[in-house]
Amino acid sequence: RKRILVTGGAGFVGSHLVDQLMLQGHEVTVADNYFTGRRRNVQHWIGHPNFELLHHDVVEPLMIEVDQIYHLASPASPVKYMYNPVKTIKSNTIGTINVLGLAKRVKARVLFASTSEIYGDPEEHPQKETYWGHVNTIGPRACYDESKRVAETLMYAYSKRDHIDVRVARIFNTYGPRMHMYDGRVVSNFIVQTLNGHPLTVYAPGNQTRSFMYVSDLVSGLMKLMNSNYSLPCNLGNPEEHTILEFAQLVQDITGVKGKVSMKKSQQDDPHKRKPDITVAKTQLGWEPKVSLRDGILKTTAYFRKELGLVNNEQEQ
Amino acid sequence: RKRILVTGGAGFVGSHLVDQLMLQGHEVTVADNYFTGRRRNVQHWIGHPNFELLHHDVVEPLMIEVDQIYHLASPASPVKYMYNPVKTIKSNTIGTINVLGLAKRVKARVLFASTSEIYGDPEEHPQKETYWGHVNTIGPRACYDESKRVAETLMYAYSKRDHIDVRVARIFNTYGPRMHMYDGRVVSNFIVQTLNGHPLTVYAPGNQTRSFMYVSDLVSGLMKLMNSNYSLPCNLGNPEEHTILEFAQLVQDITGVKGKVSMKKSQQDDPHKRKPDITVAKTQLGWEPKVSLRDGILKTTAYFRKELGLVNNEQEQ
Ligand SMILES: NC(=O)c1ccc[n+]([C@@H]2O[C@H](COP(=O)([O-])OP(=O)(O)OC[C@H]3O[C@@H](n4cnc5c(N)ncnc54)[C@H](O)[C@@H]3O)[C@@H](O)[C@H]2O)c1
Ligand SMILES: NC(=O)c1ccc[n+]([C@@H]2O[C@H](COP(=O)([O-])OP(=O)(O)OC[C@H]3O[C@@H](n4cnc5c(N)ncnc54)[C@H](O)[C@@H]3O)[C@@H](O)[C@H]2O)c1
Ligand SMILES: O=c1ccn([C@@H]2O[C@H](COP(=O)(O)OP(=O)(O)O)[C@@H](O)[C@H]2O)c(=O)[nH]1
Ligand SMILES: O=c1ccn([C@@H]2O[C@H](COP(=O)(O)OP(=O)(O)O)[C@@H](O)[C@H]2O)c(=O)[nH]1
Ligand SMILES: O=c1ccn([C@@H]2O[C@H](COP(=O)(O)OP(=O)(O)O)[C@@H](O)[C@H]2O)c(=O)[nH]1
Ligand SMILES: O=c1ccn([C@@H]2O[C@H](COP(=O)(O)OP(=O)(O)O)[C@@H](O)[C@H]2O)c(=O)[nH]1
Repeated sequence: RKRILVTGGAGFVGSHLVDQLMLQGHEVTVADNYFTGRRRNVQHWIGHPNFELLHHDVVEPLMIEVDQIYHLASPASPVKYMYNPVKTIKSNTIGTINVLGLAKRVKARVLFASTSEIYGDPEEHPQKETYWGHVNTIGPRACYDESKRVAETLMYAYSKRDHIDVRVARIFNTYGPRMHMYDGRVVSNFIVQTLNGHPLTVYAPGNQTRSFMYVSDLVSGLMKLMNSNYSLPCNLGNPEEHTILEFAQLVQDITGVKGKVSMKKSQQDDPHKRKPDITVAKTQLGWEPKVSLRDGILKTTAYFRKELGLVNNEQEQ
Repeated sequence: RKRILVTGGAGFVGSHLVDQLMLQGHEVTVADNYFTGRRRNVQHWIGHPNFELLHHDVVEPLMIEVDQIYHLASPASPVKYMYNPVKTIKSNTIGTINVLGLAKRVKARVLFASTSEIYGDPEEHPQKETYWGHVNTIGPRACYDESKRVAETLMYAYSKRDHIDVRVARIFNTYGPRMHMYDGRVVSNFIVQTLNGHPLTVYAPGNQTRSFMYVSDLVSGLMKLMNSNYSLPCNLGNPEEHTILEFAQLVQDITGVKGKVSMKKSQQDDPHKRKPDITVAKTQLGWEPKVSLRDGILKTTAYFRKELGLVNNEQEQ
């Protein structure tokens, strides 16, 4: 039984991680400023003796005693992280410095939620951990990409100097229940549009690709990585790649709702393709994603249906 | 007449910039923690009514009133910035946030000393400002490269949000008097080795290239950029490119001292080539370097000769 801090634990990924850690019997503390997360995501644990919820911004120092830290505090969707780029950078730079300062003091192991975005608009495909990436320092995505990059640098700089035990997960696109309905990510957009009978907004050209991982697969990967001996960056993602146009079709096929596609103008610096090489995770952690896109989309659609009030309370049980 | 802050003003480049600003009659404040700089570089201004020297680390907030800020505070040579990577990252991230916070409050214009290192080990040659770069987030140079990259991102993020007037100079290798004798940069190493009759240490393979700019050219470029209307990143460098082996030969030719070359093992992630495309500086600022390598090396050699005590006081006058 460990004392575990999850920064950003009231968010989409964090709250699922908290569920697993609590089920394993750990003492879990969540530190979240509710910028993009919400209390509701962890409501079911409030009052549990092993659970503590701190209203805390990681840009401020935090003094607690823990054995492990999952450091997830950062906006994650392009719409949210571009909403206040300065805040995004501070969360990932000053926030990571504070978390590492804490880890140093209490000798905790820290896992940092990095991202496939550190590869930018990649020129190597699929992306291996050895790829250095292709990022525009002054583009619209830079606040997220560059601050995640330097946060990785911070992890290894502190690790080397202060002998902190670090883990770096490079997370590829993840979806599932508790995603925000309106945070602009493609999965939530397409499902909500489908359920509302609105046209699916595909940003030009539509042949850009992504690979989508279901959240339970990510959570198991994060926990395996944390408890492994592997300390270099490790991709966690689903290597099944789709163009966005294909994906729009798939969402309609899976949900059984026929909709229209509406082409929208292209987004500046939108990565053309993205697909993880997960050889490291397979060989070092014995991990690979298990949930099919079909099952994942069905579960996520059920969640959004409920969120939208499209089911009545009896069906909900 | 303006009130001008120079962070890192007791360093090599900063002190030459201070000289020019003082000669123009401005009120100059230097903020420096003397990590790699020294009081001696600005000693000749101490006591002047327009000059103030603050012993200050930019990682801490600074409350003063100024019109312009040249933000140069950061170690610059690989040996120094790798000495304490955490400190290097903090100077460029938290330091830049503080400088931007100050600029916001007092409505000052800020110029950030970025670097050709943001291009990393470039795959485009020569490097234009539009090139996104090729940097290893977890390599030995990352503490410098990645923190300079995210500092550029911070400059434009604050500029956009808080309407701060920003300038970003991407500085290529610069040399001249007041370089540290033992900071490990190739120009100081080769000249000091030559003067001491030691073999010139060339790191393998020796065919890596650099382009060397004399410090007075850089200072005029920085001042032109600051006072121009151009707010995007601007390369400042000398496009004359040499391999390091050639450069070892040139130093011997120019100084007239024949020495030996000693090949040393290669450095991890050492950029293979580097040469600025200075079209932007030429067209936007009407700037280009004026000092030949010969003249620059002669002046720098004279400086090191004095530093090493190889001239007596009469010759020194
Ligand atoms: N979901 C993905 O596809 C994906 C992909 C790559 C990386 N990631 C990373 O995983 C982590 C979690 O992402 P998510 O999808 O759950 O996003 P999310 O927005 O749902 O969760 C992030 C959580 O962090 C909190 N937060 C943000 N800034 C904070 C701050 N300064 N202090 C304290 N809390 C703060 C938010 O309130 C939220 O609860 C993020 O670090 C993200 O960058 C996610
Ligand atoms: N010289 C070059 O070839 C070159 C090339 C590219 C970029 N630059 C940039 O130009 C700037 C000046 O470089 P330089 O060659 O004069 O190096 P330098 O080391 O001589 O000067 C840097 C100065 O900043 C000070 N400093 C460092 N960290 C500080 C902190 N946290 N707070 C306050 N002061 C601090 C040092 O004491 C020093 O006086 C740096 O930002 C460097 O990254 C230089
Ligand atoms: O339990 C702790 C210890 C440190 N810190 C913060 O972590 C940062 C970095 O820590 P520290 O200053 O010890 O690290 P260093 O100076 O060695 O980088 C500082 O801003 C501290 O306020 C924290 O939030 N909790
Ligand atoms: O309504 C939408 C939202 C996103 N996208 C595209 O889907 C991909 C994934 O976008 P998302 O914002 O989910 O995450 P990203 O992987 O870009 O961070 C990108 O190419 C977007 O341009 C789209 O076509 N329509
Ligand atoms: O005159 C000033 C104003 C602000 N700051 C520092 O600059 C940083 C960023 O400023 P601020 O918090 O105003 O910016 P924001 O929160 O808008 O990013 C803060 O840490 C302040 O301490 C400073 O050093 N001098
Ligand atoms: O004694 C030395 C110092 C440096 N170098 C090489 O000279 C180039 C410039 O190195 P420096 O440290 O001056 O600056 P950099 O441009 O790498 O930041 C690099 O390829 C170094 O490997 C060298 O061959 N011998």
